[in-house]
Amino acid sequence: MDLTERFVSREEKFSGRILTVHVDTVTLPDGSLAMREVADHPGGVAIVALDDENNVLMVEQFRYVFNEPVLEIPAGKLEKGEDPYLAALRELKEETGATPGFFQPLGKLYPSPGCYGETLHLFLAKNLTFGEAKPDEDEFLRSERIPLEVLLQRILRNEIADAKTVAGVLKAKLYLNI
Amino acid sequence: MDLTERFVSREEKFSGRILTVHVDTVTLPDGSLAMREVADHPGGVAIVALDDENNVLMVEQFRYVFNEPVLEIPAGKLEKGEDPYLAALRELKEETGATPGFFQPLGKLYPSPGCYGETLHLFLAKNLTFGEAKPDEDEFLRSERIPLEVLLQRILRNEIADAKTVAGVLKAKLYLNI
Repeated sequence: MDLTERFVSREEKFSGRILTVHVDTVTLPDGSLAMREVADHPGGVAIVALDDENNVLMVEQFRYVFNEPVLEIPAGKLEKGEDPYLAALRELKEETGATPGFFQPLGKLYPSPGCYGETLHLFLAKNLTFGEAKPDEDEFLRSERIPLEVLLQRILRNEIADAKTVAGVLKAKLYLNI
Repeated sequence: MDLTERFVSREEKFSGRILTVHVDTVTLPDGSLAMREVADHPGGVAIVALDDENNVLMVEQFRYVFNEPVLEIPAGKLEKGEDPYLAALRELKEETGATPGFFQPLGKLYPSPGCYGETLHLFLAKNLTFGEAKPDEDEFLRSERIPLEVLLQRILRNEIADAKTVAGVLKAKLYLNI
């Protein structure tokens, strides 16, 4: 069975600095019509960065959406037309001061493919050297290093809610076989 | 340093059947003002379900947002006021026909805490018995069982983009130590 849903028409609902929202009418595989609400996002990058002692570089920042500080791997939005690889290097440097000697893609993630158009590009960084962190002016965050084993225990205790952090750290663990 | 951002005012931008969008003005820790675009979502559930041979129950469905079929663990939105535990049992049964003898929470995920208000409740299901699947009328999906080892290889080859699937399957693996 072909599962494809086909575009029929679009109503634009909101255009912000980050998000754009539209409601599309589509045809389902049986020919019937349905509505699809979509919040589009420019995409982002996130970096699992491990120092030579297998500490994971983490940042804690206040997430207004959930009204709480959230512990996450370094991440950021893509600027228009920006290359994810370069964006990830930039975000890592800005948020943690780290520059990696080893840096490679670790796949893409769809954070919530039902309604949210964000694609997140994951990277793995190792062989780190450290300079000065320079967060954006309106970015207030705490940077820390957490031993991988401690972070795994925190994931198991359901203390890490950020999806890219759970997915990224566990994927890096699987990839590095550590 | 207190990282808290405080609500000042709100502009409602869109109210759909699933998403509601608003732009809030907030005060940052240094007292300056900033705008926060938020797409709110009712929340959801997702289930890592393993049969007695450690096959993972997966569903493939067309994700209009990305214009492609996406392979995912069973999942669904919360109805208003619905208990996540019961919702997860319902979704698992509807999408795969499975009823678990062992069922427990595996923590919550924030799929994209920057702008997206969805909280996803993860569950682990085992000791499955199978009846008839009954997807929603407008839900067209293919259900399949994939051996855990095969799924891990597909994750490593960057073939699994759905964040809840990468996070959930790898967390279940860590939890069950398999």
